[in-house]
Amino acid sequence: MKKYMEENINREAILHIPLSQYAFADAENKLTIRIRTKKDNIESCMLYYGDRACESTPVVFEEIPMKKAATDEYFDYYEVTFITPFSRVCYYFKLENKKEWTFFYSDRFTKEMADYELDGAILEGRSEYYQYPYILKSEIQDVPNWFKTAVVYNIFPDSFACGRYEAPNEKKEVILDSGKVSKARLGGTIHGITQNLDYIQELGFNCIYLNPIFTAGEYHKYDTLDYYHIDPCLGTDEEFKQLVDEIHKKDMKIIIDGVFNHCSWQFFAFEDVLQNGKESQYYDWFYELNLPLTRPESEVGKPKYACFAYERKMPKLNTSNLEVQKYFAAVGVHWLEHYQIDGWRLDVANEIDREFWRAFRRAVKLQNKEAILIGEVWEDAQTWLKGDAFDSTMNYEFRRICRDYLIGEQKDAFRLAKQLEQMRLRYPTNIVRGQLNLLDSHDVPRFMSLCKGDERKWRLACILLMLFEGVPSLFYGDEQGICGVNENEYRNPMVWGQNPQLCVFVKRLIEIRKEYTDVTSSYQVLWEEMSQDIFAFERKNENGKLRVMFNLSDKTLECQKYLDDELLVSSKSKDVLEPFGYKILFEAHKSH
Amino acid sequence: MKKYMEENINREAILHIPLSQYAFADAENKLTIRIRTKKDNIESCMLYYGDRACESTPVVFEEIPMKKAATDEYFDYYEVTFITPFSRVCYYFKLENKKEWTFFYSDRFTKEMADYELDGAILEGRSEYYQYPYILKSEIQDVPNWFKTAVVYNIFPDSFACGRYEAPNEKKEVILDSGKVSKARLGGTIHGITQNLDYIQELGFNCIYLNPIFTAGEYHKYDTLDYYHIDPCLGTDEEFKQLVDEIHKKDMKIIIDGVFNHCSWQFFAFEDVLQNGKESQYYDWFYELNLPLTRPESEVGKPKYACFAYERKMPKLNTSNLEVQKYFAAVGVHWLEHYQIDGWRLDVANEIDREFWRAFRRAVKLQNKEAILIGEVWEDAQTWLKGDAFDSTMNYEFRRICRDYLIGEQKDAFRLAKQLEQMRLRYPTNIVRGQLNLLDSHDVPRFMSLCKGDERKWRLACILLMLFEGVPSLFYGDEQGICGVNENEYRNPMVWGQNPQLCVFVKRLIEIRKEYTDVTSSYQVLWEEMSQDIFAFERKNENGKLRVMFNLSDKTLECQKYLDDELLVSSKSKDVLEPFGYKILFEAHKSH
Repeated sequence: MKKYMEENINREAILHIPLSQYAFADAENKLTIRIRTKKDNIESCMLYYGDRACESTPVVFEEIPMKKAATDEYFDYYEVTFITPFSRVCYYFKLENKKEWTFFYSDRFTKEMADYELDGAILEGRSEYYQYPYILKSEIQDVPNWFKTAVVYNIFPDSFACGRYEAPNEKKEVILDSGKVSKARLGGTIHGITQNLDYIQELGFNCIYLNPIFTAGEYHKYDTLDYYHIDPCLGTDEEFKQLVDEIHKKDMKIIIDGVFNHCSWQFFAFEDVLQNGKESQYYDWFYELNLPLTRPESEVGKPKYACFAYERKMPKLNTSNLEVQKYFAAVGVHWLEHYQIDGWRLDVANEIDREFWRAFRRAVKLQNKEAILIGEVWEDAQTWLKGDAFDSTMNYEFRRICRDYLIGEQKDAFRLAKQLEQMRLRYPTNIVRGQLNLLDSHDVPRFMSLCKGDERKWRLACILLMLFEGVPSLFYGDEQGICGVNENEYRNPMVWGQNPQLCVFVKRLIEIRKEYTDVTSSYQVLWEEMSQDIFAFERKNENGKLRVMFNLSDKTLECQKYLDDELLVSSKSKDVLEPFGYKILFEAHKSH
Repeated sequence: MKKYMEENINREAILHIPLSQYAFADAENKLTIRIRTKKDNIESCMLYYGDRACESTPVVFEEIPMKKAATDEYFDYYEVTFITPFSRVCYYFKLENKKEWTFFYSDRFTKEMADYELDGAILEGRSEYYQYPYILKSEIQDVPNWFKTAVVYNIFPDSFACGRYEAPNEKKEVILDSGKVSKARLGGTIHGITQNLDYIQELGFNCIYLNPIFTAGEYHKYDTLDYYHIDPCLGTDEEFKQLVDEIHKKDMKIIIDGVFNHCSWQFFAFEDVLQNGKESQYYDWFYELNLPLTRPESEVGKPKYACFAYERKMPKLNTSNLEVQKYFAAVGVHWLEHYQIDGWRLDVANEIDREFWRAFRRAVKLQNKEAILIGEVWEDAQTWLKGDAFDSTMNYEFRRICRDYLIGEQKDAFRLAKQLEQMRLRYPTNIVRGQLNLLDSHDVPRFMSLCKGDERKWRLACILLMLFEGVPSLFYGDEQGICGVNENEYRNPMVWGQNPQLCVFVKRLIEIRKEYTDVTSSYQVLWEEMSQDIFAFERKNENGKLRVMFNLSDKTLECQKYLDDELLVSSKSKDVLEPFGYKILFEAHKSH
């Protein structure tokens, strides 16, 4: 349908990066290879792959056609996934359009193969093709399977509950044995969470992610005093054990927050350095220390030690130090071993030494290889998703795209679709399926506020959250329509029963997710159904096709498509797409 | 001088990848940022950088103009290196041409900054710019300084010498105590190397890299039987100790070859598995074992265990196994500790588990942080040059470019220059300065044969080898004009005194390298001096400018440039560039 002009192959647009999201192993005998080309510029793209250790010269190559897997603003992405009989693969591309053709390998365009003749002998060129050196089992990038079907409910403990359906609302301070002080702003508790597990499960969530719960000074608990105990404002170690047990009894999972980039300025190791300076055995546990060290009285001016940002109360740990790595790897194991948590969300993950994460990962996965590790990395995180650090990262890019193209000023179904495509291709397929997609967290204004309270828009975003590839994470109270622009507001107390319709809606979406999609479901933009105002996509697995259509405009739009599909849910009318309305349809594959 | 058409900014060509060769720390307070644009498409490129932890919102940004650092066939590369007052940097680009301008960040083109307003509040957008999360000292990619000034002589021990100026020429077999057999094809020895150190040093080399020397079966010694001893055909442990001592007395360095991807099928651990099958404690040391295991009698058919290629005599080690990692890390340390070698060249490095290399690197660098680690990776090696595996890799791409564009069918000065630019920008600057550039190794036909014996062409390639950025490695006998197309030929015995003129030439080049360039010397293509037939570049440091001009054609060309420069050496005539001729000139900076 697209018109291919008689233009040359656009070489500037072509991109392939070996050992990246453009070339990865899905399994020990399965590779995915991608190449980026200029949009609508290429007519055919072939992959040729061979055995790097092929006993004959030249190498024998197998040809496979690549398919256009995605399109965004400027590019087409061709992709092929194939079973390889060899562990060592070399490969090249053949690109063709109406006007010309070229091979592509070694980042070069050529019409020649890499082998060459010299005095009648054929000289070896196999090393000049692109290489997948060896598919090592230990290096396949994947996510624990259970996590790919998780639906996560994210709780900020101080704000959530202090009893059944009971919102917290009491400032507290607890004086510890050491004389240090632990604060609460609202007074939510661990026990309060336990008492509301049925509420969470009833909505369909099967995994809980808690913001920090270890003993700490401030109400948010990101300034840890003691990595081995539950904060007394939140409860006791026993209460946490009970919570985990209850969660597991309900066949749910629990992830907790690890804050290892920095600690409290009252953490024992920092106190030791304050007292003993260079003589302290913990001197090298911290970063950029300028002696003599003191706790600055005022927030004004920069502390004489590296901090989280310039927060004087949160000195940065030297995560390159082997002792620090050991200390926190042990913390990582402790909560798995003694409390059976199911994984860690890892704070400020991108500012921490990679060796720290490798040591942490090794220790944790040795304890439980199914434990999930989720890094807090807001930007493109591919360098942390190579199998040596995290399984997943918090996907703020998902939120940005929804904000900018689904509900924002630039509302535009095509842009939305293209940006989502770009996001999906940032990482290997397995990794994308394990990304923690989110609209809200404890660090950003409530998405409902970005919608200016327009629930219709929020619903569209929530549908995408629940039905897109990846793992949805909902911040407590979003299902009740909580708003909030500044930090105190978006961490406001949970409201119970504020918006039952919205709860029903969220619940229904999670049901649909569970019933009509699974880990194998492909995602496909329905370009043919789209307009500037209508966004449409499909998730397909062996049972059938789940189709989703959004109206991003404030006009009522005709939409007679897929009349034979089963209508699972829609905004109101079955026949039209109302302003900011939607339809979710299902077409079962015909049985034979 | 270039004409900028009034065209839009070409968006398809623009590439920036955070935490890659496009954004790296040269030092704790120094960042280099690059961006790729379509050739001749952009007129001005600005970098804006700010403190990720900036206390005000929006972040305060500093503006720096970027310079066009390189150009290749399709792209311009803009670059800036700057001192940053912050460890945490966010940044974006502003691109401009005659027709339009755009910001570029998050892989998006926009005219908007990332902060946005909501109900009068300014909401935080800093996480949406490109991020350099934290400049951790432990993660700065660099190469030990001594290595950047190394000039390497690569010896294949069996082929080199069995006495002073004495080429080996005697097939041998030694029966070990274990009854296993060690073979020699030509009979070169460690002692033979020691006796010719003055020859090597006289030529100007200050570093020797030896192909494998540990006890092994075949003459090439890549099928190791014993990682703790010198092969008896080559000599004794004591003789090797003497060699190292003599090398160090001459203020030279020595690098040896570590073959850890596979071992001999008579290696003790594999023998144990052959005998004991699944019961063997070494069962998991190998890869893809299909029991019952035997040593196949014939080369025909594939062995029932993974091998180096399908070489039944070289079973692949399971380098993901922790015991294997420990065993070889100990080997790595042993030769540093007991013999004081200066580093390792690491065989088949790209097929080995990355955790293996991390463990190996940690152990080796703890023993001697100045030890150099050079991986055998023929392809783009950036994923191994991130500071957790190798300092350097064998740069076969250098050879390919010389073969294809300097002496081959496609002889073309512009292509040559552009391909070299592309190669230089593959890695961070520090890493490029430590790349092991080569024309020859034990694995490829002699470059002189690719020149079909035309010494004039070989000289051009050798000039580039010696005067380009990176560390030159010359394979033994190249200085004597050795030829050879098949494996036996290119590993032919050293010839002594075959080509004294060529030796003088090599020696002079190394002198020039040492006298007129240093680690700080920039490399610059002299585009203005070039034609299809003339390639010209400059190395500049604080002393002056070294200029090199090649004639790639078989015609005599006029060349009146740089008449005031000191002529260091030229093919014959001073005034013209003869067919395949050259000039090397120097212009000292005027002292004040």
